[in-house]
Amino acid sequence: MATKAPTTTRQSAQLKTPKGTRDWVGRDLLLRDHIFKTISDVLERHGGIPLDTPVFELRSILSEKYGEESRLIYDLKDQGGEACSLRYDLTVPFARWLAMRTDVQHIKRYQIAKVYRRDQPAISRGRLREFYQCDFDIAGVYDPMIPDAEILRIIAEVFEAFEMGIAIKLNHRSVLHDLFAVAGVPSDKIRPTSSAVDKLDKAPWDEVRKEMLEKGLSAEIADRVGGFVQRSGSMREMLDNLSTDAELKAMGVIDKVSFDLSLARGLDYYTGLIYEVIPDQSNQPTQVGSIAAGGRYDGLVGMYGRRPLPCIGISFGIDRIFTLLDARRKKESTSELAREADVYIMAFGGKEFDGLLLERMDVASQLWNAGIRAEFSAKVKPKAQQHFNASEGAPVAVILGEDEVKAGQVRVKRLHLGDKNAGQKDKGLLIAKENIVEEVRKLLASISLDED
Amino acid sequence: MATKAPTTTRQSAQLKTPKGTRDWVGRDLLLRDHIFKTISDVLERHGGIPLDTPVFELRSILSEKYGEESRLIYDLKDQGGEACSLRYDLTVPFARWLAMRTDVQHIKRYQIAKVYRRDQPAISRGRLREFYQCDFDIAGVYDPMIPDAEILRIIAEVFEAFEMGIAIKLNHRSVLHDLFAVAGVPSDKIRPTSSAVDKLDKAPWDEVRKEMLEKGLSAEIADRVGGFVQRSGSMREMLDNLSTDAELKAMGVIDKVSFDLSLARGLDYYTGLIYEVIPDQSNQPTQVGSIAAGGRYDGLVGMYGRRPLPCIGISFGIDRIFTLLDARRKKESTSELAREADVYIMAFGGKEFDGLLLERMDVASQLWNAGIRAEFSAKVKPKAQQHFNASEGAPVAVILGEDEVKAGQVRVKRLHLGDKNAGQKDKGLLIAKENIVEEVRKLLASISLDED
Repeated sequence: MATKAPTTTRQSAQLKTPKGTRDWVGRDLLLRDHIFKTISDVLERHGGIPLDTPVFELRSILSEKYGEESRLIYDLKDQGGEACSLRYDLTVPFARWLAMRTDVQHIKRYQIAKVYRRDQPAISRGRLREFYQCDFDIAGVYDPMIPDAEILRIIAEVFEAFEMGIAIKLNHRSVLHDLFAVAGVPSDKIRPTSSAVDKLDKAPWDEVRKEMLEKGLSAEIADRVGGFVQRSGSMREMLDNLSTDAELKAMGVIDKVSFDLSLARGLDYYTGLIYEVIPDQSNQPTQVGSIAAGGRYDGLVGMYGRRPLPCIGISFGIDRIFTLLDARRKKESTSELAREADVYIMAFGGKEFDGLLLERMDVASQLWNAGIRAEFSAKVKPKAQQHFNASEGAPVAVILGEDEVKAGQVRVKRLHLGDKNAGQKDKGLLIAKENIVEEVRKLLASISLDED
Repeated sequence: MATKAPTTTRQSAQLKTPKGTRDWVGRDLLLRDHIFKTISDVLERHGGIPLDTPVFELRSILSEKYGEESRLIYDLKDQGGEACSLRYDLTVPFARWLAMRTDVQHIKRYQIAKVYRRDQPAISRGRLREFYQCDFDIAGVYDPMIPDAEILRIIAEVFEAFEMGIAIKLNHRSVLHDLFAVAGVPSDKIRPTSSAVDKLDKAPWDEVRKEMLEKGLSAEIADRVGGFVQRSGSMREMLDNLSTDAELKAMGVIDKVSFDLSLARGLDYYTGLIYEVIPDQSNQPTQVGSIAAGGRYDGLVGMYGRRPLPCIGISFGIDRIFTLLDARRKKESTSELAREADVYIMAFGGKEFDGLLLERMDVASQLWNAGIRAEFSAKVKPKAQQHFNASEGAPVAVILGEDEVKAGQVRVKRLHLGDKNAGQKDKGLLIAKENIVEEVRKLLASISLDED
C-alpha cells in the first residue's frame, strides 16, 4: 500500500486540464450557448457579420499592440517555420483582417471565440487563462459619434436581454490625457499614469498614489491627478461637452451612462471614447468586475502599413456573464448531463423472449428518419427494470411485444417521471406499426400543451 | 521608389494568417455553420451531448497516443509552468475527460472544434494545419455491435442530409492483424505493415511494397500481404463472419458498406472495427480523400490509469465536406459579405434639411426593440443616392420627411433591387409613427409570401 499510493497520486495529478482552463459540458454548456445566442441575435439585428480567425497569429501581428500586458501572451514553441502566438484578444486579429481586406470599406463584424492570457486565474470570479470573448466592432469612416452611440445602444440591448442591471462607465482618452497634462504629468509619464489610475476600481486611492510615486510623479502632481479622477459619476457637464447627450437619448441609453474619469483601460491601442460595463452590484451574488469593455481604436489598422481605418468596438466577457447568470439560475433537479431523448423504445416478452433488438432498431430508424429524438437500450435482452432505468427523462415510450410485432402493431405510451412501474399496468395505446411517427408526434404535442 | 518597394513587400509578406490556417467570413462561414447545424441535428437526435474542451492539453495527456504521427503535434513554448500542446484530435481529450469523470458510465457525446497538425497543407483539397473536426462517440459497456451499428447508421444519416453519395469502407483490427500473422509478418512488424498498407488508397501497390521491404519484410511475405489486402470490396463472406448483417440491415445502411482489407488507419489507439467514408467519386469535382473516419478504441481511457471504458466513435472532416459542398454550390450574385438588414431608414428634405439623424435613430431603436433588423446611414446628412447605395439588399425602407415627422407620420415602402431611383417617384405608404413596427412586419410578411 505504502508504495502504491504515490504512483496513484502522481497519475491523478496529471489527469486534469491545464491551469486556468476548463471543460464545458451539460447544463454549463447549455447556459453558455444561451449566452452566445442571446448576444449574437442582438448583433445580427444590428447588421453584424460573423468572422472567424485562427487561434494563433504570426507573432509579429501581435507585437507592440498590448503595452505592458504583452508578457501574458502564449507563444508556440519553435518547431521550425513561422513564429506564432495564441491570440490575446479578438480586436487585433480583426484589425489584421481589415488591413488585408482593403476591398472592405465599412463593416460591422462580430466574433465569438476563445482568447488566451497567461494571467493568474481566479475561476470563482470568472477569470481563466482560456476564456471566451464576444466582440462587435464597427469599422469605416462614419460621421462623428454615430457608431459610438450605436455601440452603447447594443450594450444596453444585450444586458436587457439577460435582464441584468448595468452601469456603463465612459471616458475619453483625449480628455484623460489633457487632464493629466493640466495636472502637470510629463508627457512620457501619461501612459504609466493611465495604467495606475485604471486600478482605482480594484484598489484604494493610497495604493494607486503609491504606484504613481514609484513611477516618478511628485506627490503634488499625484494628488492633483487624484483630485480630478475621483470626481466621477455625476459630471454631466463633461457629457454635455462631448455633445453625445442627444444621440444617447435617441438611442435610449442615457439613463445607464455615467462619466468616470478614473476609467483608463489597460490596452495601448485605444484612441478616443472608452467604456466599461459593470453589473448592478446591489443584487449580484458574485463580484466579477467589468463584464464588457471597449473603445475607439482609430490607429490600429494603420499600424499594418496598408491603409488607415477608424474602428470602435465592444468586447463582452462571456465567462463573467456566465458566472453571474450561473449564480442566479435555480438549481434544477435533472442530472447534469441530461439531454433526454423524446422517445424510448422498449420490448417485453416471455421465457423465450429474444429481446426484439432488430425490431427496436427498425422503430428507432423510422423515428430518426422523421427527425424525432429516440433511444433504445444498450442490451440485446434488457429486463423491464433496465428499460425504465435507461428511459429516464423520455416522455414517451414505444413498447414492442412479441405478439403485437407479429400482428404489425406496437404500443405508444406516455411516461411519467418517478412512476417507473406503472408502465406495466397501463399498457398504452395499441396502434399499427406504420402509424408510429404520426402517433408519437400526437402524443408529444399533447404533452407540450400540458406543460404550457 | 527603389528604396521604398522592399519595405512594402516585407510588410505585405507579414500581413497574412499563419501557414495552413485561414479566416472564415461571409458565405464560407454560412456554409460552414450549415454543415455544423446539419451534423449536430443528427447527433442530437441520437442522444448526443455536446462537450467542449480546452484548445491545449497537458503534453503528457497526448503523449504515446498517436504513434508515428506524434511529430506533427504543436507544442506551446516553455514560458514557465506546465508543458502543454495543442490538441491533435478530439478523441484523446474525450478519453481524458472520461478518465476524470468516473461518475459517467455511459455517454454519447459530440464535439465540433478545431484541431492542429503540423502537416504539409494542401488547401485546395481541404487539408489545413488548423481544421475543424466533428466527433461523435459512444462510451460505455454495451452488448456487442449495437453502438457500432448505430455509428454506421449516423454516418448514413449525415451524408443523406447533405445529399452526398458515399461508400463506407470497413475493416477490423483483429482481422487485419490475424491476416498479417497468417501471411508471416513477425509480430513486431505488424504496426509498421499496417501503416504501409493504409497508404494503398493514395499510392500504387509497387510503392507500398517497397515501403514494406524497407521496413524489413521479405518480398515473399510482402506479396502474400498484398494478395490478401487487394481482395477488398466484395468480400461479403467477411461481413457474414462479423455477424453484423442483420444489424446493418435493420439500421438501413447495408447498401453503403463494403469490406476493405487495405483499410488500416494510422492512429495507434484503435482496437476493433475501423471505418472510413469516401465520397462517391463519380460526380465529385474535387478529390479530397476520406471525409469521415473512426473506429473502436477500447483501451484508450484505461491508459490514464483510473478505469477502463470501451468506446467507439466517428470523426467528420468538416473542411473536406466543406470543400465538396463549396465546389457544388452555385455561384450567387450577392456580395460575399452580404447579410442585409430587413429595413433601411432614410430621410429626405429641402435646402435647410438637417438630416433627421435623431429621428432615424429613434425609429431604428423602435425596430430593434421589436427584434427587426434595421440599419440607417452612417452620414448625418446623407444625400438621396447615398441612402440607396447603403440600403443595398434591404427589402423595406422607412422614409422620414420633415413635414411628415412634424405630423407624427412616416412612410414605409418596399425596395426593389436594381431600382434605385424609383424610390423617389413611388413615395410608399404614409402611416402614423406609432404603427411603424406593425406596418413593417406586414410588408415583410407580404414579401416573404411573394418569394415562396
